[in-house]
Amino acid sequence: MNAQQPTPMPFGKYKSFFDRIQLDMRDRTWPDKRLEKAPRWLSTDLRDGNQALIDPMTPERKRRMFDLLIKLGFKEIEVGFPAASQQDFDFVRQIIEQDAIPDDVRISVLTQAREDLIERTAESLVGSNKATIHLYNAAAPVFRKVVFGFDGDGRDQTRDIAVRGTQAVMKHAESLLGDVDFGYQYSPEIFVDTEPDFALDMVSSVLDMWQPSAGRETVVNLPATVERGTPNTYADQIEWFGRNMPYREHVALSLHPHNDRGTGVAAAELAMMAGADRIEGCLFGNGERTGNLDLVTVALNLYTQGVDPQLDFSDIDEVIHTVEYCNQIDVHERHPYGGDLVFTSFSGSHQDAINKAFADREARAKEAGVPTDLMEWDMPYLPVDPKDLGRSYEAVIRVNSQSGKGGVTYLLKSEYGLDMPRRMQVEFSKVVQKHTEAGGEVSAPALWSFFSDEYLPSDEPTDAWGRFRILGMRTESHSGEGDAGKNTERLEIDMRVDGQERTFEGRGTGPVNALVNILNENFDLDIRLQDYTEHAIGSGADTQAAAYVELAVGDRVLWGVGINPNITRASLKAIISAVNRALRDQA
Amino acid sequence: MNAQQPTPMPFGKYKSFFDRIQLDMRDRTWPDKRLEKAPRWLSTDLRDGNQALIDPMTPERKRRMFDLLIKLGFKEIEVGFPAASQQDFDFVRQIIEQDAIPDDVRISVLTQAREDLIERTAESLVGSNKATIHLYNAAAPVFRKVVFGFDGDGRDQTRDIAVRGTQAVMKHAESLLGDVDFGYQYSPEIFVDTEPDFALDMVSSVLDMWQPSAGRETVVNLPATVERGTPNTYADQIEWFGRNMPYREHVALSLHPHNDRGTGVAAAELAMMAGADRIEGCLFGNGERTGNLDLVTVALNLYTQGVDPQLDFSDIDEVIHTVEYCNQIDVHERHPYGGDLVFTSFSGSHQDAINKAFADREARAKEAGVPTDLMEWDMPYLPVDPKDLGRSYEAVIRVNSQSGKGGVTYLLKSEYGLDMPRRMQVEFSKVVQKHTEAGGEVSAPALWSFFSDEYLPSDEPTDAWGRFRILGMRTESHSGEGDAGKNTERLEIDMRVDGQERTFEGRGTGPVNALVNILNENFDLDIRLQDYTEHAIGSGADTQAAAYVELAVGDRVLWGVGINPNITRASLKAIISAVNRALRDQA
Repeated sequence: MNAQQPTPMPFGKYKSFFDRIQLDMRDRTWPDKRLEKAPRWLSTDLRDGNQALIDPMTPERKRRMFDLLIKLGFKEIEVGFPAASQQDFDFVRQIIEQDAIPDDVRISVLTQAREDLIERTAESLVGSNKATIHLYNAAAPVFRKVVFGFDGDGRDQTRDIAVRGTQAVMKHAESLLGDVDFGYQYSPEIFVDTEPDFALDMVSSVLDMWQPSAGRETVVNLPATVERGTPNTYADQIEWFGRNMPYREHVALSLHPHNDRGTGVAAAELAMMAGADRIEGCLFGNGERTGNLDLVTVALNLYTQGVDPQLDFSDIDEVIHTVEYCNQIDVHERHPYGGDLVFTSFSGSHQDAINKAFADREARAKEAGVPTDLMEWDMPYLPVDPKDLGRSYEAVIRVNSQSGKGGVTYLLKSEYGLDMPRRMQVEFSKVVQKHTEAGGEVSAPALWSFFSDEYLPSDEPTDAWGRFRILGMRTESHSGEGDAGKNTERLEIDMRVDGQERTFEGRGTGPVNALVNILNENFDLDIRLQDYTEHAIGSGADTQAAAYVELAVGDRVLWGVGINPNITRASLKAIISAVNRALRDQA
Repeated sequence: MNAQQPTPMPFGKYKSFFDRIQLDMRDRTWPDKRLEKAPRWLSTDLRDGNQALIDPMTPERKRRMFDLLIKLGFKEIEVGFPAASQQDFDFVRQIIEQDAIPDDVRISVLTQAREDLIERTAESLVGSNKATIHLYNAAAPVFRKVVFGFDGDGRDQTRDIAVRGTQAVMKHAESLLGDVDFGYQYSPEIFVDTEPDFALDMVSSVLDMWQPSAGRETVVNLPATVERGTPNTYADQIEWFGRNMPYREHVALSLHPHNDRGTGVAAAELAMMAGADRIEGCLFGNGERTGNLDLVTVALNLYTQGVDPQLDFSDIDEVIHTVEYCNQIDVHERHPYGGDLVFTSFSGSHQDAINKAFADREARAKEAGVPTDLMEWDMPYLPVDPKDLGRSYEAVIRVNSQSGKGGVTYLLKSEYGLDMPRRMQVEFSKVVQKHTEAGGEVSAPALWSFFSDEYLPSDEPTDAWGRFRILGMRTESHSGEGDAGKNTERLEIDMRVDGQERTFEGRGTGPVNALVNILNENFDLDIRLQDYTEHAIGSGADTQAAAYVELAVGDRVLWGVGINPNITRASLKAIISAVNRALRDQA
């Protein structure tokens, strides 16, 4: 019954994973295993994650990420690639010198296997408490042959690089890091593409040099730098390796999955079943190309099976907020556990089933004399209790006192066409929470009234709205052919101020700048424009513009909104909105 | 060496999957299987996907999606839930009556197991060529007990619903759909949460009623409506079911995974290894909560193993464009195969390795006398040849003639602070392609010069830029307390038009609208504003505004851009930019 036709795409040029890597694992044991404890977690947000950003983290964003990781409970954090980047070097020095690393947290840094780089890497760690040098070299055939152009199969040269690198780490750690609780980590790069016997050979040689023993921290990390096969193949490779490697009892076998085939989380889970002790990844799966393994999902997958993840995601919105700020990449609406839409049911029959099950659960909790939030979780369509993550279940057009910005933003967008900037969403969701502290659900019209009470002028002629209200305005601007525009705008504006109609005049690069100047000069205010965005609502004759401005007013930063068919008026109203809000709150 | 601490989150309230579903599968065979052919694909973008949208598809968006699915090669398409939604009913009628369904394509529609709904469902299919009714009922314990409140274990009542539903389908299909090549599909809802023996009992009873046989199309679909366990558990459930079900040779065993644990793709792959014949999902994983299975990723995962996916993704940007338009949800930057960043390397060592391997590949192709694009693909860091998908490999700050909007957008944003609207990105990437047809890489400054040549006024006083150029302007606007704003803006504008300086006056709801009116009235143009957005570039004294407008000019739709410190001037310049472009192209 298959009517499908051949693709026109040239699939013949690809080889199966099984033609690359042969491994007889018919005696594998992992498919019968269960995940019953958390692995050791290593966050590489500040290294592998940061390397993959369009706009790499500033020192301030790095520090925000580091502090978040500490707060979530990470005890192993890869903080940079200091020999490759001066910024990374400086950051490592900064957190060591500022004593920002708790005593029970181990930092690690990556290095290539060149002695000068290793020395520089060791220098970065001087004065730290617990630190690891993570050495890697490329072992996969395409590197030996094509990238490095070694003779023959290139195995000897490649093994040499690893062993001599390890020796150099030992030498410089001894001379520079005598006071440090020092650890060593080795990765044969693109492990999944490397002949298993050669990967084992490399690791064995490195370990013979290092001599792992009780209390001598050693990590062997086996990266799926690029995801190549179905996730079971990674598990087979890990089980095979764990069985055959020497010093197994003194080594933490570590995973470093990527997500090129969209199965990074699965590969990590199956490979944990196959015996891995430790996992490397990033929050919400940031990282080169399709990203590193998403640690949030792996941890919460354990959590929803009743296993302690040894990490704390009880305020997942804060995690998202910080990750989005640090990475400047949004978490997708449908991202497991964190996306704006994942606790929202749009289907009526789903909503109905969930409502019934919630009621039943509450009744059973009452009967059992147990707090509802601690009752066994067995809910249709919701694999996790949103409350455990600081979120709530949001049926469509239902927003209540626990609603995050997701529901609020969705409703204002779908019902009123407003597309609030991200930072403003966070501000407004706090406004909503204030209104809904008493509990209960909030309809879209109620939400709109919170919004307009907060940001828009009231229609009443009273002054509840604030000190300032715009009445009329006139502008004039000139420029030559190049119109580079230097305070070429003259603005004359009629406002009602403290109940009196007055007219002001000012200049600026444009009307927004001119109004800011007028307010600062005439009212002794200290206003600075931080951000500005504007969009159309609707189209055709009824089009309105919605303008959003983020203002610093004295030492406060807050948003204002203006809505008007006239784009200039909308912007000026947004300025007045923010200023009135700032002064209202002071009063 | 594990310093991790217990989480404060209440993990004890969750049960392990293995406490819900017991299945002894120590004799499983799937871990030794390989994926060697494509499954039968069913797209449920128009049903399960559409149900999960913030803003469900309009008839026009549905049709765009349907036509795309046909073009990609889907032969089984679930087109709606006609008895639950009048809009779905109308859409099914429309594609049947307009003869939009190719002869080799089978449509299917979902229904609950109530006779009135089944009759209505059958009515929707009258006149179709190949059609399937897909019946489901909820079988999992939480539904039987809590949602429906059946007595005892509720098995008899639940089985009855399924069998009587099947009977009703047979009856109404016979009376209404005699001319249709008719098929039947049954799903026990939340299969993964249902006791395996009971799911088998339900399906067996339904099949006994239906009597599958050669040529009598039957699909048994086993949904992971909510993803509950590690992906191997779904494979175990599918292998067990396939072994034990009756009529196996006359049934297509179908998967319907969701992605709550981020392992939907893996679950589908392992369950295919476990014997499934058919897969349901959506393009780029749209769907309720975390989404349905992503069919694009599963298909391209097969492709990169040298297996014909029987679907055509050779223009993946077009797929993304249509999916984003129809769903109004973006495909994430790191989404496998499709995201804007997945063929971009930010790491210098990755770039270097890729460049060397590209050079080597070209040399080997030349030696072998084979077109480079067909040479065996063995590339570090790139699991698929971007060219096969109509994309290109984009190292940072490298954009070439095959670059999609990803690289172009990234460069203009990172280097010049421009945040182009999505539809404009598509327009501009075509402009870039025109400039780069001759091949070669394009630097950020070159890209900026393409951009400013196309959208911004030239500094030369010649008229190459276009008919219109803004010199000075004066505005005046008044309003009462409510400032509802009805053509309250008066705009006086000095322009150089066809080389002569002239002054015009007009009115509108704001300056943009007033300028559009001036142009339409004085130059016999037919300009309508379609969309408008504006944002700040930088902050503080040097802030500029970038305005983007989408104008309809006669029967063309195109974008204009204005950059100026003055937000009003930026907007008016954007209007002029679009108008000049439209007239320039006519000339």
